[in-house]
Amino acid sequence: MLILGIDPGTIKCGYGCIEYLSNTVKLIDSGVIKIPSGITMPEKIGIIFREIKIKIIEHKPGQIAVETSFFGRNIQSALKLGYARGAAIAAAADTLIPVFEYSPREIKKAVTGRGGAAKEQVSYMVKLLTNTPEELIIDESDAIATAICHAFSTRKGTGSAKSWKDFVKLNPGKIV
Amino acid sequence: MLILGIDPGTIKCGYGCIEYLSNTVKLIDSGVIKIPSGITMPEKIGIIFREIKIKIIEHKPGQIAVETSFFGRNIQSALKLGYARGAAIAAAADTLIPVFEYSPREIKKAVTGRGGAAKEQVSYMVKLLTNTPEELIIDESDAIATAICHAFSTRKGTGSAKSWKDFVKLNPGKIV
Repeated sequence: MLILGIDPGTIKCGYGCIEYLSNTVKLIDSGVIKIPSGITMPEKIGIIFREIKIKIIEHKPGQIAVETSFFGRNIQSALKLGYARGAAIAAAADTLIPVFEYSPREIKKAVTGRGGAAKEQVSYMVKLLTNTPEELIIDESDAIATAICHAFSTRKGTGSAKSWKDFVKLNPGKIV
Repeated sequence: MLILGIDPGTIKCGYGCIEYLSNTVKLIDSGVIKIPSGITMPEKIGIIFREIKIKIIEHKPGQIAVETSFFGRNIQSALKLGYARGAAIAAAADTLIPVFEYSPREIKKAVTGRGGAAKEQVSYMVKLLTNTPEELIIDESDAIATAICHAFSTRKGTGSAKSWKDFVKLNPGKIV
């Protein structure tokens, strides 16, 4: 299954497309869309929407994963992040691909085992898991981590079961 | 010229399409897109994007006007408003129609003459200016007001000239 992870932003927008097969992660494509400064917010939203749509059309992922939540205290930053996420998710909606959201904590935990891991640790583990020798830009690495988080959450028996009913559903082999 | 005004939101999203010709405003279509509760944010963003795109395809406006700025203090509300605006502006970007942003103050001033006007006063003036006898929902009326604000700002001689160079450009008839 191909999964596209997105780390939206109005300055830089990271993306990472992975293939998740037989419990292994293969990096197909990743990068950072750099949004020029000195243009209007609608123009920035337009660039994010179009560039993400191009990536979706190029790779045809089955599912899309986006980082959610915002822990800052600045209203204007929250608004801008909202614009970027809205534009990226709209690109997915336009192609009718289902979108899944994960909190930074869930993403960090999935790739490093610790919800409070540093960005550098996330980047290190992303390189390790995808067997990538080259350095990754932080936004790029975060986007790949989001895709990996979604891949792992779809794995049988490791889904986030919130009740016994869920657990049974996720672990049919454990019913005796 | 046809102008589509949008008042984005993740609960209700107002829209209003006006025709602005010879200094008169004609209301072509307006309404409110009600976004169901109990669905995920990506699903909400998808509805806003698709419904606004349908309106754009239906009316083919030459320009789109969106209310900008956020005066609340709640980070989550700012983030949600950002999602809605991002989705609506992405729909415009997808159809390559230019988007213009106006602050609530500019919109209120354009339709009532006072930047601090109450929502009811804005609604009253929108009905008067568009010759609409029926009651308008607040989000619908706000969207029409945004479109009217853009229409008036493109009017010769009343544009927001910020310098003499701008003034001369906006008022070519005044050059002697």
